[in-house]
Amino acid sequence: MQTIIDVATRGQGLYEITKDVAAWVTGAGADEGMLTLFIRHTSASLLIQENADPDVQSDLRAFFGRLVPPTSHEAMGYITHTSEGPDDMPAHIKAAMTPVSLSIPVASGRMMLGRWQGIYVFEHRDAPHRREVVAHLR
Amino acid sequence: MQTIIDVATRGQGLYEITKDVAAWVTGAGADEGMLTLFIRHTSASLLIQENADPDVQSDLRAFFGRLVPPTSHEAMGYITHTSEGPDDMPAHIKAAMTPVSLSIPVASGRMMLGRWQGIYVFEHRDAPHRREVVAHLR
Amino acid sequence: MQTIIDVATRGQGLYEITKDVAAWVTGAGADEGMLTLFIRHTSASLLIQENADPDVQSDLRAFFGRLVPPTSHEAMGYITHTSEGPDDMPAHIKAAMTPVSLSIPVASGRMMLGRWQGIYVFEHRDAPHRREVVAHLR
Repeated sequence: MQTIIDVATRGQGLYEITKDVAAWVTGAGADEGMLTLFIRHTSASLLIQENADPDVQSDLRAFFGRLVPPTSHEAMGYITHTSEGPDDMPAHIKAAMTPVSLSIPVASGRMMLGRWQGIYVFEHRDAPHRREVVAHLR
Repeated sequence: MQTIIDVATRGQGLYEITKDVAAWVTGAGADEGMLTLFIRHTSASLLIQENADPDVQSDLRAFFGRLVPPTSHEAMGYITHTSEGPDDMPAHIKAAMTPVSLSIPVASGRMMLGRWQGIYVFEHRDAPHRREVVAHLR
Repeated sequence: MQTIIDVATRGQGLYEITKDVAAWVTGAGADEGMLTLFIRHTSASLLIQENADPDVQSDLRAFFGRLVPPTSHEAMGYITHTSEGPDDMPAHIKAAMTPVSLSIPVASGRMMLGRWQGIYVFEHRDAPHRREVVAHLR
């Protein structure tokens, strides 16, 4: 079974999709299986991270923002792909360091996530985007 | 087929689980298939890395420790999630940069690992933890 | 269905394999399924990245080269695994930060890649290598 989950983002940061994915898995009615998520973009990624303290999400964004600053920053002066804006090439780099696909086992009809694990789209661009996440269960 | 492999960690570093996984795959008796590993935590991750020279494992730990220092370090002064200890938010960051799931093809009843590939739990916390890795084969 | 795709690399950088993978998927004749790619090495990795502007690929290589310089660089003086050359341990580190496996849904006989997504082998060593990528479809 396959579907596409649309996620509207409003700038850099983490957008939780755990409930959307869980609802689809429940509707699919499979008892045991493997859920694969795949994001169809190169400037946003997927992430499983702590969903308890929202500070974790803003700290993740802050860390990656310092590790890979905008290309307008002097530390990034060697970057050549700048025509799509100062946030574009950093977005590709961050997407290369974080998952494009996730494989999550399903048992008793539910994802086997740990107690604190939430599923997120990690948006790396400044402008709002519509992101497509393919969900596949078998 | 599914199981949970428990891994007891004793502080930051890599803990090899290749033999445990291989034994379970052999016991499962599948000739050809896909093995998925999934770690149910947000401050430890999975890694496939060289299992020949143990220095590779300590160097990996050292590199990530310098890239993401404890929040008590002045370079991390902007971090807000500090209530769970100076090693907690760095653990989440390192877990975001390394795999939560791995997909390993199986042929002739064995994982198709390369000659030097070992499977590890990468513990990012200082205190001992009991980590759960879901193994799924079909 | 399984195969091994051989990729000859000539030093650090990204080598696109999208067409090779697509041709094999087409030949496999599956309508809907899950494609898994797995690289059998610890000093090269897989990556899905933008295939429009080749500058993105050279910028990715440049970024990771600065984040993880050769062990001959003073910033890497703490590294102990240096016997296989100054590019070896950095290769392991870069391989730890980028995917060893990718899961790509297939529908209507084609990979559900986004418009700008290409599949690459990311070579982290300086010398030419022959890299093996396992493709598994079911």
